[in-house]
Parts: sequence; C-alpha cells; structure tokens
Amino acid sequence: MDQIKKYVEENKERFLEELFSLLRIPSISSLSEHKPDMVKAANYWRNAILEAGADKAEVMASEGNPVVYGEKIIDPKLPTVLVYGHYDVMPVDPIEQWYSKPFEPEIRDGKIWARGADDDKGQAFMHAKAFELMVKTNTLPCNVKFMIEGEEEIGSPSLTSWCKKHKQMLAADIILVSDTGMISPDTPSITTGLRGLAYWEVEVTGPNRDLHSGIFGGAVANPINFLAKMIASMTDENGKVTMPGFYADVLDVPAKEREMLARVPYNEAAYKKSIEVAELFGETGYTTPERTGIRPSFDVCGIWGGYTGEGAKTVLPSKAFAKISSRLVPNQNHEKIAVLFKDYFESIAPASVKVKVTSLHGGQGYVCPVDFPAYIAAENAYLESFGKKPVPVRSGGSIPIISTFEEVLGIKSILMGFGLESDAIHSPNENYPVANFYKGIETIPLFYKHFATILR
Amino acid sequence: MDQIKKYVEENKERFLEELFSLLRIPSISSLSEHKPDMVKAANYWRNAILEAGADKAEVMASEGNPVVYGEKIIDPKLPTVLVYGHYDVMPVDPIEQWYSKPFEPEIRDGKIWARGADDDKGQAFMHAKAFELMVKTNTLPCNVKFMIEGEEEIGSPSLTSWCKKHKQMLAADIILVSDTGMISPDTPSITTGLRGLAYWEVEVTGPNRDLHSGIFGGAVANPINFLAKMIASMTDENGKVTMPGFYADVLDVPAKEREMLARVPYNEAAYKKSIEVAELFGETGYTTPERTGIRPSFDVCGIWGGYTGEGAKTVLPSKAFAKISSRLVPNQNHEKIAVLFKDYFESIAPASVKVKVTSLHGGQGYVCPVDFPAYIAAENAYLESFGKKPVPVRSGGSIPIISTFEEVLGIKSILMGFGLESDAIHSPNENYPVANFYKGIETIPLFYKHFATILR
Repeated sequence: MDQIKKYVEENKERFLEELFSLLRIPSISSLSEHKPDMVKAANYWRNAILEAGADKAEVMASEGNPVVYGEKIIDPKLPTVLVYGHYDVMPVDPIEQWYSKPFEPEIRDGKIWARGADDDKGQAFMHAKAFELMVKTNTLPCNVKFMIEGEEEIGSPSLTSWCKKHKQMLAADIILVSDTGMISPDTPSITTGLRGLAYWEVEVTGPNRDLHSGIFGGAVANPINFLAKMIASMTDENGKVTMPGFYADVLDVPAKEREMLARVPYNEAAYKKSIEVAELFGETGYTTPERTGIRPSFDVCGIWGGYTGEGAKTVLPSKAFAKISSRLVPNQNHEKIAVLFKDYFESIAPASVKVKVTSLHGGQGYVCPVDFPAYIAAENAYLESFGKKPVPVRSGGSIPIISTFEEVLGIKSILMGFGLESDAIHSPNENYPVANFYKGIETIPLFYKHFATILR
Repeated sequence: MDQIKKYVEENKERFLEELFSLLRIPSISSLSEHKPDMVKAANYWRNAILEAGADKAEVMASEGNPVVYGEKIIDPKLPTVLVYGHYDVMPVDPIEQWYSKPFEPEIRDGKIWARGADDDKGQAFMHAKAFELMVKTNTLPCNVKFMIEGEEEIGSPSLTSWCKKHKQMLAADIILVSDTGMISPDTPSITTGLRGLAYWEVEVTGPNRDLHSGIFGGAVANPINFLAKMIASMTDENGKVTMPGFYADVLDVPAKEREMLARVPYNEAAYKKSIEVAELFGETGYTTPERTGIRPSFDVCGIWGGYTGEGAKTVLPSKAFAKISSRLVPNQNHEKIAVLFKDYFESIAPASVKVKVTSLHGGQGYVCPVDFPAYIAAENAYLESFGKKPVPVRSGGSIPIISTFEEVLGIKSILMGFGLESDAIHSPNENYPVANFYKGIETIPLFYKHFATILR
C-alpha cells in the first residue's frame, strides 16, 4: 500500500495531464460528424496502454468505431484480468448550461470538469495508470488484457460481433470495469445489479403537411395531441407501465434482498434537494432505491414537433416525434420488450394518425452474486484502501454490454465504480473529483493482488 | 367591367412584378432578427399606395412594427372604404420542405410560390392595384383609406392602441379585407364568421438539470411524461375540451344556420385525400365544416424537450415545453379563456413538477350578418365578376383584429377573400394562383361601385 501511494504521489501531475489530453478529444459516438475524433481517442488509448507497459496494443477494426485491444501476459498459468472501458462520450447539449467548455477540461473545487471526466474516460483511464503502476513497481500479479470500445453510449452495437470474432484472444477469468458509482466519497460500493435498456424513436404523422390551425383545427387529428395521449396512456397514476406483458418477466425481489437494499444509506430530503424537486414520483409500493434498482422505468428522453421557435405560430403540425426508453430489470429480455412496445404502441394509434416505431438500441440487465471470487477480491481491496467494506448496490443504470459479455464470452464482470452521483454524467457540467481518480488508481492494484491470491 | 378587364390586361405583368418585389422582403414578424425587413416592407407599401394615386401615404410609428396609412378623399360626403391588410408573414420552417425559396417568388403551374403569396401580401396588394385601376380610369366612387399593419401574424399586439389613437383619422363606413379564402376557383364566398384565438406557451420543469435516465429513471417525475399526461387530459375521446368552463360562453348555433352551413359544398373524400389522412377526428356530433366553423378547438402547435438530436441519448430531461392554441367561437372571450386555461393547467400539475403558463396572444371571434349593406354590395360584386352569388362561410381561422376594429373603431368589416385551401398558407410552399390575383383586382372595384350605390 505504501509503495502504491508513493508511486501515485510521484506521478499524480502527469496522470492528470494524460487524462486531460484524452478528455480534449470530443469523441461523441452518437453524432456522425465526430467520426474522426473516435479514431483519435482510440489511438490515444493504444499509446497509453503501450507506454504503461503492455506487450502489445492495437486499434482494431469493428463494424463501427474501432476497439482498442492491448495485453501483457506474464504467465499463462496466472489469472487473467480483462479491463473493459469506453472512450466514447455522450453529447453535450444543452451546451449553454455548461460553466466551462465540455472538451476543455479544468480543475475547480477539487474536481475535473469535462464531458467524460467520469463517464468513462476518467474512470477507465485509472486502469491504464494502475496497470502502469503495477508494471513499473514489479507488482503485477495477473495477466492483463484491455478492451476499450467507442460505442458504449450508443448501446455497443458492434462489440458483440467483435467479441464473438475474438473470443479466444479475450479469454480471461474476470472482466474488470469502472463505469459505475459509489455511494459517497467515503462509502465504497460494488454494483451487483444493472438495469437493461430498450430505446425507441416514435414518429406520429397526421396530415401530409403543416396546416393552418384555424382552417383545419378541430377537424383534423393533431399528431402532437395524439402523441401526448399515447405517451400518457403508457403509465398509470401509480407509476406502473400499462403495456400488457411489460412486467411478465420481472422477478419479484425476495423480502430479504429488499431489506438489504433498505440498509444502503439514502436520505430522501437530500436526494430531493440535490435535484430541486418538491416531490418524487415513481411506482407505488417501492422505495426510491427500489424504483431505480429493481424495477423497470418508462421515460420519454426527448420530444419534438410543430413550431418550436420564438413567439407564436398557429400551426397544426404534420409530424411529432419522441425518443422513449425503458430501463429493464435483469430477467426482462430487451429484444422481447423492444418488439412488445413497437407492436403495442403502433396498435394503440387511432386511424386518424400514422405511427412508426423504430428500436434504436437495447441491452440486458446483469446481476453479480456477492459470494463470487471477484466480488470478495474487490471487497478486500476496498477494505484495504478505504478501511471499510464496500456496500453491494443495484444500480439503475445500464451497461448493456456487461450481460452480453456473460452470454458471448462466458465471463462475469466485477463493477468497481468510483463515480459520485454529483458527477452529473450525461448532463451539463460533468465532473469527477480528483481524489476519486487517485483513489481508484490506488485501489485497483489491490484488487489484482487479492484476486490473484483467491484464485491461486 | 370591360374597362376593368382592359386595364388589368394592359398592366398585368407590372402588377406581378410589383407584388414580387414585396414578396422578396422576408418580413417575418415573429422573429426579431427581421425587424429591418418590417420597415422595408412598410416603406414598399407606402410607395405603392402613393404611386397608385393616394393623396398621402405614410409609415406611422406604433408600439411595435410600423403601420402604413394612406388615403384619397374625393368627397367627404361619399362613403369611405378602409382597406385593411398586413405586410408581415409567418416563419418559413420547416424550410427543407419548400420546393423553391420562400422569399424568391416564382411562377409555376399558374401559381405564385412564396411565403406571403396569399397571406397576406398577395391578397392585400390586389387592393393597391384595384385602387390604382379606379384612380387611373376615373371610376373611384368612394373615399379610400389604407391601413396596412406588420403584426397580424403575431396577434396585432400594437394595432388596438394605434387605432384608439387615430380613431378619427380612420373613420370609415366599412373595413374591406382580403385575408381569407374562397371555396373553389369558381365558387366565390364571403367569410361571415371568424374564430377567435388564445395562444399559450407552457413550461414544465422536473429536476433542476438533465439527469441520467438509468440512475434516476423510475424515481423522479419526467417533465415530458407529465406534460404529455397534462396535454392528453385536456381533451376526451369525443374530441371535447375537458377544461371546466371552456364551453360556457359557446352559443349553440340554431338548426337553421347549421342547415345553411351544410349546403356549403364539402367533399369529405377529397378533403381527406388533400391532406392524406385515413380518418378525420373532431368533436362528436358535428360535421367537419361545423368543427372548424362554429366549434372551438384545442391544438398543440409545437412541443419540445430533452434530447432531440441524432441517435439515442438516455436522459431524464429537466424541462419540457409546448405551444398550445385554442380557436374560439364568437361569444367566447379570449382573455377569459386565456386566464381559465392558465389557472386550470397550472392547477392540474402534480407536485412532482413545476408548471408555468404564459399567454402569448389572443383575439375575439367575429360575425358579419348576411343582410348587412356591405355584404349585399360584395354579393353583387361577385355576381358581376364570377357570374354567380357568393356563399356565406364561417371560417375556422382567426383575424383577431377584425373584432377589435368593431370594438374600438365601431366599424364592421367585410371579408372578401380570394385564397384557396390549396394555397398552403402558414405552411411550406405557400402559393397563390395568378388567376385569383387578377380576379381579385377585377372584383374589388365592383364592390366599391355597389357599395357607393347602396349607401347613396
């Protein structure tokens, strides 16, 4: 531990500088104009892995953005850790809400401010530096492989086929991921459950062109009015999704596990204050951590149609659109839900409008048992670096690829997240405390140590 | 009539060229960056009125965009006609749906294509040219005044106070307006009723920032989901507005008038085909012409919120917005309805979101009796130029200022519209048949003739 702290202390400025160089690349995967930035970010990662001490590292083609792969095999008989992360980031709009430029990282109040500061450039880069630390201090106890992709924020559409193709190369005992959060700066946690995701775009068409709302208003179905009605009908006053079959595969979480969840620190007043809402709203019969941890959701992520400019334009629009997503719980199949919604939403459209639903992406949920070797190794690592045992948490977020890894590669993942809720990932003013960045770099080598010991 | 036709024939090319110069000015009143264009359009009109033969014409200040006023008083004892029109136009988006540029007018298929070609540059300019015709052929039988404003498309916010200030100057026996449509190219019609209008912008705020839809989804009220629910609740499955008190002042139209309305040519199959909808939707118990003519409507004119870019962004947005309008029938008071909606919509907001309603503009409905002298004069004018009597029609559109004229100036209006439903006013590809433009110029002097005769 002293050796680890010493190495981090001696190199902390350089670690930050290297991260900043990565953060400056606007690698937004959902916007096609950023294609060249994806390649830049991938190249940056390849060099980082090589310089940290890998035997080899390369930018490999996939059906979409390239995947960075690197490895250091010290002894085939030793356990192998496969580090997964992503170099792509979310879009930055609404850009006017940022206090500093999203791709010009800066330190304020002990935090790194930039798009990707946490999710996932900051967190993934801790693994490059922890790896460097173990190599340079001759303490690497496992073989290491890196797989850093560039399409996580759009649902990793190419990584499944890429993994299938390179299954042998990727063989490992565990996949190690830092792309989640911890409860608070001094309460480490391990994410043992992730929600799945289904995401659609819907298009409602009324008349063939925008009409004068006076001449036609009252006689022609307005696609916005009807889209609103259709969206409204998807959930009831108890916060339940009304679509038949939606809950069919949702497993009832046993009372014992709900009791465990209830012990996770949660302050409702602070939660409401942090997002400035007077009241929370969710499914009746469940607590807030349960609503986000063990129950599916139904959110409209975006909506648009008609006149949205300055002032008043009286128009009966031709089209209305919405982007809709459901967070799913582990036993729900995202492909089944994707079809269920498409069929249902199209079926409830009245004859006066046309409705088209396109499934944009999806992923399965994931559960990691708390008696799993990697879980115990992580638990011991946190105990050593934080002085306390981590809390197992079911996250509301989705990393669809995690369950795919299990299906395709047959490898479980351990989710050692160092982000905080206040990091504002996916939002304006994303940030990552500098302390968490260094704490991650210190904790990761301890995981390797305990994992190697347990598997010996 | 022969003299009229001869003058139009000899000057037709010039008439079009002059209109095109007006159409080239992008005088969009709802967009502040077009302020200089408003002045340009006003100056163009002043010159046009002067050159047509007015004694005087000037661009007069108002609290908003300037008003063009001009007059020719040939004999104070003769009747006075006050021509009203507007030089402002609607915005042009969605711009990509235009086949030619909205402010570069061109003739295709016998039609003038441009924003404002019909509404109201094309129609109002017929009055300038009809006036010129009467002056140059020494057939002007009335005094003439022009009042051409630049804020009609945003609800004429400044014209009421301007009219109050200049009430004496504007004294007239009738206000003559071409800003409505006719049933078909060979079926002239006079608009005897106009709907009123109320227009609001609503803002729904959930959390104080865009949130990660995984981490928060299911536990925090989504402002788009709730806006959809609130909009959906405003109308029922019978197409009725559910807001208490909304229909309180709506007058039941007598069976006899409904029978008259039913005689107006209307082909439902053709109507549906023209806007490409499989089924119409409106208030149960009323026909399509009744739904737009004698019943109020509730339309969302625009909606936006959350992520509306390319691809999928999983976000639980902070805000959602909508622009909402109701077309009102004559006895409904727009100010009362504006307050009624604001109070009601804010009252139905659940505690988990904040709702703010802003009233953007509004106007009263209007009715013109069919036994009114100006109606009879217009009837005779159409009979002479089209060879058939016009049909009285209640339009679904609003010209809020028409009822204000009655209140403030004590002058009724006669609505001689020459537009067609296919003119796509307020929509992409607005157009105006060249034939209608000339037919209007021919018919207007006949109105002056008959009006002078009746009032003699």
